[in-house]
Amino acid sequence: MQRREEFIIGVDIGGTNTVVGLVGPRGSLHTSTIETMSKGDPALFVNRLRREITTLQGGIPPESILKGIGIASPAANSQAGTIEDPANFSWGTVAIVNMMKKYFDIPIAITNDGNAAALGEMEFGVARGMRNFIVITLGTGVGSGIVVDRRLLFGQNGWAGELGHVIIEEAGRECGCGRAGCLETYISAPGICRTTLELLASRHEESALRNIGPRDLTAQTVCEHARNGDLIAIEAFEIAGTILGRWLANATAIFDPEAFILFGGVANAGEILLKPVRASFTKHLMNFYRGRVQLVASQLQKGHAGVLGASVLISRPEYFPSQEPSDIGSSISSTG
Amino acid sequence: MQRREEFIIGVDIGGTNTVVGLVGPRGSLHTSTIETMSKGDPALFVNRLRREITTLQGGIPPESILKGIGIASPAANSQAGTIEDPANFSWGTVAIVNMMKKYFDIPIAITNDGNAAALGEMEFGVARGMRNFIVITLGTGVGSGIVVDRRLLFGQNGWAGELGHVIIEEAGRECGCGRAGCLETYISAPGICRTTLELLASRHEESALRNIGPRDLTAQTVCEHARNGDLIAIEAFEIAGTILGRWLANATAIFDPEAFILFGGVANAGEILLKPVRASFTKHLMNFYRGRVQLVASQLQKGHAGVLGASVLISRPEYFPSQEPSDIGSSISSTG
Repeated sequence: MQRREEFIIGVDIGGTNTVVGLVGPRGSLHTSTIETMSKGDPALFVNRLRREITTLQGGIPPESILKGIGIASPAANSQAGTIEDPANFSWGTVAIVNMMKKYFDIPIAITNDGNAAALGEMEFGVARGMRNFIVITLGTGVGSGIVVDRRLLFGQNGWAGELGHVIIEEAGRECGCGRAGCLETYISAPGICRTTLELLASRHEESALRNIGPRDLTAQTVCEHARNGDLIAIEAFEIAGTILGRWLANATAIFDPEAFILFGGVANAGEILLKPVRASFTKHLMNFYRGRVQLVASQLQKGHAGVLGASVLISRPEYFPSQEPSDIGSSISSTG
Repeated sequence: MQRREEFIIGVDIGGTNTVVGLVGPRGSLHTSTIETMSKGDPALFVNRLRREITTLQGGIPPESILKGIGIASPAANSQAGTIEDPANFSWGTVAIVNMMKKYFDIPIAITNDGNAAALGEMEFGVARGMRNFIVITLGTGVGSGIVVDRRLLFGQNGWAGELGHVIIEEAGRECGCGRAGCLETYISAPGICRTTLELLASRHEESALRNIGPRDLTAQTVCEHARNGDLIAIEAFEIAGTILGRWLANATAIFDPEAFILFGGVANAGEILLKPVRASFTKHLMNFYRGRVQLVASQLQKGHAGVLGASVLISRPEYFPSQEPSDIGSSISSTG
């Protein structure tokens, strides 16, 4: 008898759009997009998500099975199966796994964006075959997915990997987490804008960025100006890259990884960011690590990475910390 | 047939003395001490160590077995079975596992002090039953043993956990590693002495510490003066504690551990150090961790902790990262 082909639904919840994908054998992928409406009613979102998944289910060949649903979300709690009041959402806490289980009698699991990115890179991206690596997500916030000996680092409550909230400067920039000086306030997209404003204040250099109101300034705009040779814009990325590079050297002393993979909107700046990151990383690295740690940008197609990573929640339970199958069951809700 | 009782030899190599212990069932322990002679010939050390082990072996009851030898050492390379040029030793690289295997046809394994301390705490100390915790070793240097989901974090080359060499201040104090601003230069025993000297330079306050030449100053002396109310000495520990507490808050964001266990000479300062560490840790911690992370000093008897921890290298192969028995064999040299 031929083995039935297995499909998995991957869901990548973002602040604006949510990508839903049907991941088939050998990573084949069919995706569609719905609006997240992060200021709306989360119950309506779950309902629209359910319909979208049902539509995608129609594309599964007869005799094949839908193995489960994996969800990547900001502020995800893997153990509770909830999304817990993400920044810039008005959802409060959403018990999304339980809500979805009413409709789908298959395993459903959730994790945060950073962990999903790491799972995607390990299964489909540049981290294939690696045992120890760290994905740094650089966007509106800064997060990470940390893989130790081919397993995700979750920590005691599932909160590990908040690299964005390592304090790098005592009494530094105010952070959304209520503290000050967090790494995120310097190297996230808004952090790069804050650095740009500081430079515009402290320098006399001419810059087209002086024509943009602080509220309208984006890291992408700063990046475009850097590509056009704007010295203030270039320096803003150099400062971010230097801070990030130093921090990756610190993370190397802690984790001894094979690679760092930069992921997300800010990482799309490419060499504008990567060049100063590499210079600072090399400068701050302990001698015996030189030449041993890769520093690369994610190669996964934008819009696919989150969905692919989320699907790995279902396809690869061995990537999770607990060895006991009973424990795996607590983070992947089992069928009724 | 009764199961034969198992004994393990634990070896704790320090800069001055090496403690050798025979660890029996239920953690029973008989120890003896030899001089390390870290400036002498390492071959002579290995020979003296062999004789000491042979003597201890005589204490094993008939019908019992010696299961293996576990070694804790500074600058240990678990994979290679070597001690690699520790600071303040004149040994160069010593292939101690292979040298010992000529005499003992049993498993022999080695790891660094931080990892051995973590193993000791997990099996015999305050970390019994914990899944995720970090031991910080505070002495001449600063290191750590990091346990993730009941397994030691080794990293790709076995170098993980060098918390002492996280850079906390750009262009900060010169460090023995060739860089500057490493955590170790502020919170190790010599780091506390450096802070004391800075305070003596910047303050007018009277202090008995002004009578001690910088070369003769030790962290223990500073600690004794702090206990006697010397304001400079108290502030030196407050500064170290504040820096350490902030760093433990950062490590919490990264690892989401159940506990930090402070271990080693500087940790023996007790509340003089722990009080400012706790205050700073609480101040810098992300809100949702409050009340969730323990901060304690090791309770293992001084002189026993290293030996007990080293013995766990042999008794608990499941604490090591690799799941495959063949991989465990590469860090624990197997019998002929």
